[in-house]
Amino acid sequence: MKRGFGSDNHSGISPEVLRAISEANVEHALAYGDDEYCARVSQLFKETFGQQASVYFVFNGTGANVLNIDAMCRSHHAVVCAETAHINVDECGAPQRIVGCKLLTVPTPDGKLTPEQVRTQLHGFGFEHHSQPRAISITQSSELGTLYTLDEIRALADLAHSYNMYLHVDGARLANAAVALGCSFKEMTTDQGVDCLSFGGTKNGLLMGESAVILNPELDVELKYRRKQMGQLCSKMRFVAVQFEAYLTAMEDGKPLWQRNAEHSNRMAQLLYKELQSVPEVRVMYPVQVNSVFAQLPREVWRALQEDYFFYDWDEAADVVRWMCSFDTTEEDIHNFVAALRKRLK
Amino acid sequence: MKRGFGSDNHSGISPEVLRAISEANVEHALAYGDDEYCARVSQLFKETFGQQASVYFVFNGTGANVLNIDAMCRSHHAVVCAETAHINVDECGAPQRIVGCKLLTVPTPDGKLTPEQVRTQLHGFGFEHHSQPRAISITQSSELGTLYTLDEIRALADLAHSYNMYLHVDGARLANAAVALGCSFKEMTTDQGVDCLSFGGTKNGLLMGESAVILNPELDVELKYRRKQMGQLCSKMRFVAVQFEAYLTAMEDGKPLWQRNAEHSNRMAQLLYKELQSVPEVRVMYPVQVNSVFAQLPREVWRALQEDYFFYDWDEAADVVRWMCSFDTTEEDIHNFVAALRKRLK
Amino acid sequence: MKRGFGSDNHSGISPEVLRAISEANVEHALAYGDDEYCARVSQLFKETFGQQASVYFVFNGTGANVLNIDAMCRSHHAVVCAETAHINVDECGAPQRIVGCKLLTVPTPDGKLTPEQVRTQLHGFGFEHHSQPRAISITQSSELGTLYTLDEIRALADLAHSYNMYLHVDGARLANAAVALGCSFKEMTTDQGVDCLSFGGTKNGLLMGESAVILNPELDVELKYRRKQMGQLCSKMRFVAVQFEAYLTAMEDGKPLWQRNAEHSNRMAQLLYKELQSVPEVRVMYPVQVNSVFAQLPREVWRALQEDYFFYDWDEAADVVRWMCSFDTTEEDIHNFVAALRKRLK
Amino acid sequence: MKRGFGSDNHSGISPEVLRAISEANVEHALAYGDDEYCARVSQLFKETFGQQASVYFVFNGTGANVLNIDAMCRSHHAVVCAETAHINVDECGAPQRIVGCKLLTVPTPDGKLTPEQVRTQLHGFGFEHHSQPRAISITQSSELGTLYTLDEIRALADLAHSYNMYLHVDGARLANAAVALGCSFKEMTTDQGVDCLSFGGTKNGLLMGESAVILNPELDVELKYRRKQMGQLCSKMRFVAVQFEAYLTAMEDGKPLWQRNAEHSNRMAQLLYKELQSVPEVRVMYPVQVNSVFAQLPREVWRALQEDYFFYDWDEAADVVRWMCSFDTTEEDIHNFVAALRKRLK
Repeated sequence: MKRGFGSDNHSGISPEVLRAISEANVEHALAYGDDEYCARVSQLFKETFGQQASVYFVFNGTGANVLNIDAMCRSHHAVVCAETAHINVDECGAPQRIVGCKLLTVPTPDGKLTPEQVRTQLHGFGFEHHSQPRAISITQSSELGTLYTLDEIRALADLAHSYNMYLHVDGARLANAAVALGCSFKEMTTDQGVDCLSFGGTKNGLLMGESAVILNPELDVELKYRRKQMGQLCSKMRFVAVQFEAYLTAMEDGKPLWQRNAEHSNRMAQLLYKELQSVPEVRVMYPVQVNSVFAQLPREVWRALQEDYFFYDWDEAADVVRWMCSFDTTEEDIHNFVAALRKRLK
Repeated sequence: MKRGFGSDNHSGISPEVLRAISEANVEHALAYGDDEYCARVSQLFKETFGQQASVYFVFNGTGANVLNIDAMCRSHHAVVCAETAHINVDECGAPQRIVGCKLLTVPTPDGKLTPEQVRTQLHGFGFEHHSQPRAISITQSSELGTLYTLDEIRALADLAHSYNMYLHVDGARLANAAVALGCSFKEMTTDQGVDCLSFGGTKNGLLMGESAVILNPELDVELKYRRKQMGQLCSKMRFVAVQFEAYLTAMEDGKPLWQRNAEHSNRMAQLLYKELQSVPEVRVMYPVQVNSVFAQLPREVWRALQEDYFFYDWDEAADVVRWMCSFDTTEEDIHNFVAALRKRLK
Repeated sequence: MKRGFGSDNHSGISPEVLRAISEANVEHALAYGDDEYCARVSQLFKETFGQQASVYFVFNGTGANVLNIDAMCRSHHAVVCAETAHINVDECGAPQRIVGCKLLTVPTPDGKLTPEQVRTQLHGFGFEHHSQPRAISITQSSELGTLYTLDEIRALADLAHSYNMYLHVDGARLANAAVALGCSFKEMTTDQGVDCLSFGGTKNGLLMGESAVILNPELDVELKYRRKQMGQLCSKMRFVAVQFEAYLTAMEDGKPLWQRNAEHSNRMAQLLYKELQSVPEVRVMYPVQVNSVFAQLPREVWRALQEDYFFYDWDEAADVVRWMCSFDTTEEDIHNFVAALRKRLK
Repeated sequence: MKRGFGSDNHSGISPEVLRAISEANVEHALAYGDDEYCARVSQLFKETFGQQASVYFVFNGTGANVLNIDAMCRSHHAVVCAETAHINVDECGAPQRIVGCKLLTVPTPDGKLTPEQVRTQLHGFGFEHHSQPRAISITQSSELGTLYTLDEIRALADLAHSYNMYLHVDGARLANAAVALGCSFKEMTTDQGVDCLSFGGTKNGLLMGESAVILNPELDVELKYRRKQMGQLCSKMRFVAVQFEAYLTAMEDGKPLWQRNAEHSNRMAQLLYKELQSVPEVRVMYPVQVNSVFAQLPREVWRALQEDYFFYDWDEAADVVRWMCSFDTTEEDIHNFVAALRKRLK
């Protein structure tokens, strides 16, 4: 399969990551995270997110999100999120099954929650018939490729805390957000009052590895047992840890891998966006802030184009499709794709 | 950390496996198993276990076991297993939390269930106060390093089926069992009437990759949704599939990787066992049939030896410890270890 | 506390029901439903809903709803319901915790689902990231006191079945609906293709007793175990059964108790509605079809009136309150209430 | 069905209880426990168990036990109990499904746990693969009709607390225990360090009503939500509360109802036991301390006797059956039963 625009997890593994795995493949290491690699990388997470941070490596984004929700909520609690949130639409009901809690969803124009929208769900406190709002969950960058500013994150954290609630960030694409905003991971999360974070790497060059990062120590209670119980404890965990180590520290041109990869995929999305300016049949739906372009175009065109390239219809009824750039997308890929699009438009 | 005898998952990755990952790291592939690699390896599983078999790749053994239990049971069902079963003692209650069912445990002298033992739990059918026995789960090779013969497996399958129940095999170390018994995976499972199997690879040279293999098609109902919901769906699944491909097909001296690795670790356990014959203070507890040796020895000795080598006390009260050989254990490792043991005995 | 308009479960027990309990309080009876009373009343349910119907007595509406959802769904399934549905807003997330499934909610103007609204949720079939729509749940009469016509129920059942889904009716107030529509319970449910029903009595004169009535026999699979496991199996079940017996068969003026009670409470709501016509400050929000009146009136008025009478604000932001009539509401109650309201309006 | 010895929940309702329900059946009351009756009876529970006690009325014993377990445990915790415990063998896996936790069962000769037996399960603390022991659960009087002395309860509470664990008492038959030991409820629970209690009434004369009594206030956290979510919140709760009020306060001969009923059923069991002394074919298995007699007798005899009377075989393989006396068992019942037994012995 040639490179396309289906998803940033259609790409493979960054060479630095594969090399790190290979280099860790020497001798024995204790299993289940009790090894020196994990100790070292846990410390690296503290340097990245603040000394109070603790990291729980897991297998995938669902694991990270559900473990974080389990840290914040018991079954009678509810999580306020956007209707488009991955935890709501793309995890086959994992939070409901594993945590047993409820999601309170809010329709949004752009995939982003505002304090006003959240407030519509903040009622029924103390009323036992009502799942008790306990957390706000946002996705940075959002499922629609939009970004929360630091101030917007802070405002949601403040709102959450004023209700004795927590703020969770689903950061499957946190790197793309960080380079777009020009800030560090810590500035975007810990410093704004985020309580826990799903920090992803798989969509930005890792083989397989995500993490739940607990920023608020009061949430860090007996989570290791529940990670195990949820089936998210990796035996040869060193091979997850070193992927993150490469991700956070493998430098080139003064930039770590995560930054280079994310800058590249964001830049490719900008290039695609720019190229589309001259295609009047295509309407770009949201600001292109990270590595995705959501486009509306005639149905017969996108359907025909799907014969050339795999990509998802995002909202079939509205003829909106999603094109996703990856760390390995090339300028040539973009040009070829737009050429194919133009051909289908004729 | 030097090579030791803590666990077969303290070892790293077989070179063939790492190479397979590297070779699959080209271009893009559809995520979540819809790629050509997964299609190819799913077919390979059919060739291995029979055409009716379907494979669900998951992240770890807990995932494989729980998905299989979820295939067999609803929450009001019960699984009969040995008290020592991994699903009972080493998964922090995952079956209870994720499936909501009950385990009916049976004490055994050697980690193996017999039909007679199972029958003690087969009552209360139709009585709504009682969790309904629905499955028998055995581990091959068992947690105590013992083996079921093919006839013993067949007898348990027959018993299960005569009660409209299913037989599950936890095969985290199925390769070690297969080489010890000199039979194929299919002869040990499908051909004996096994309904579903947790087929592991991580303990025998994979980076990270296990699988639930459904052998009885009537259990293959909507499992893909529940795998996703349990957080066991891998995005870049090609990198799990090709590990199994190398495992099952990377030949040397006419033998696939799984066989070579398992033969080696079994042989190392035999060597260790043989060396221990001349150490009268050590009593080997169970027949050494696969890659583990359970030994009883004076407390001060094993505790001192743990300063040299990491290994688990298996039954502290009884002074029984477990020594586990791995695909990368060398004869020199064995000799060094026994020498260290002798030194501690002086 | 004097009689008010807080809820139809603020009322007590119909004398016929208490008498039935007293009359059954002789000698011994087998527990857990294996007694002659339960056998007799189960047969009565078959006469009421059709011979294929089977009844599971439970303690309350949450129990009935969750057992029915558990009959229709596994954890990866979803139930489409109105945003206002009791299962969504008034059970503290019971379906999520107990069944582990997801609710797909639809905003409605009047608490009623239409096929068009349901269809907006019927997508993602076969896509494992998406909870699979498996059931439609409607409330008859609805939480807003509105009614589905028989044809509307049939249309939803047909829609459900065309997607291999089921239709559930939350009938906590089914009696009020039946008398309003002038039809039998069977005509409103079984005959329209309803698959399972939460058939309530507590809100219409029972002490305590609800039931899950399975109308589609393919759903009647091992439910007795799951009722027990959910904590909904009553030991002295005869005392639930005979309440329903009185409910369905205690005749006066040629009418069974359920009908007399429901006709009365509906009539009282009509009286209240009529009286409110001459109170211009009060706007009745929905058609008054059963035993509730939803009214919009000035905040200071309804808040002051709550000093005289307990009732719920339904939508505080919109100044909408709910007034509920009961089987024991009297005409005098209505007149006194409207007088109190007028007094507060001055 | 004539009075027999099947179970103490085969009996009906004490007249005082039915009268209390009838007397509370006046006017309206707030639903879900917010009424004056419930306030009054909650206070009565404080007087009974100590001022720190809080009561949660529920529908049945499963509800009380599961709510208490949910108060003590999260899903990764374990409850140590006797193999014969009701929570283990008679609730169809409710704790596993609803709480998601594990039971660690201990075989006992007499249904009673000793600190020594419990200690066999107190290991693996801090080891994430192992469900963490969090509570001890005992049944008083036990499922085998045996009793813990106050000192024995204290010893188990001390053991629990020394491990940062809790002690739960399943008191479905606490009244029978209290009269047998000649102590108050408080002396048997609160004063010995019990943390939470399932306090039953249904088996001793109530229509339907059990309760979870939280004695250790640190467990009293957000339980009202979880009671609701579990489907254990009663709408017309006044009718549960007043049953307990009659139970605790309806005096005759200076004794409250619970005491009179329990003394009677215990005395009937003693009478039965005494009569059996002269029946050499019958071997009584355990000390007869409360209202049950476990007897071993020839299979053909007990099977024949079951044609005359319903009762359970307790251990069919061992020919042990259970005969249970109730608050309404008469001396004549005993004599008739023993006569029938003798007849079957001929």
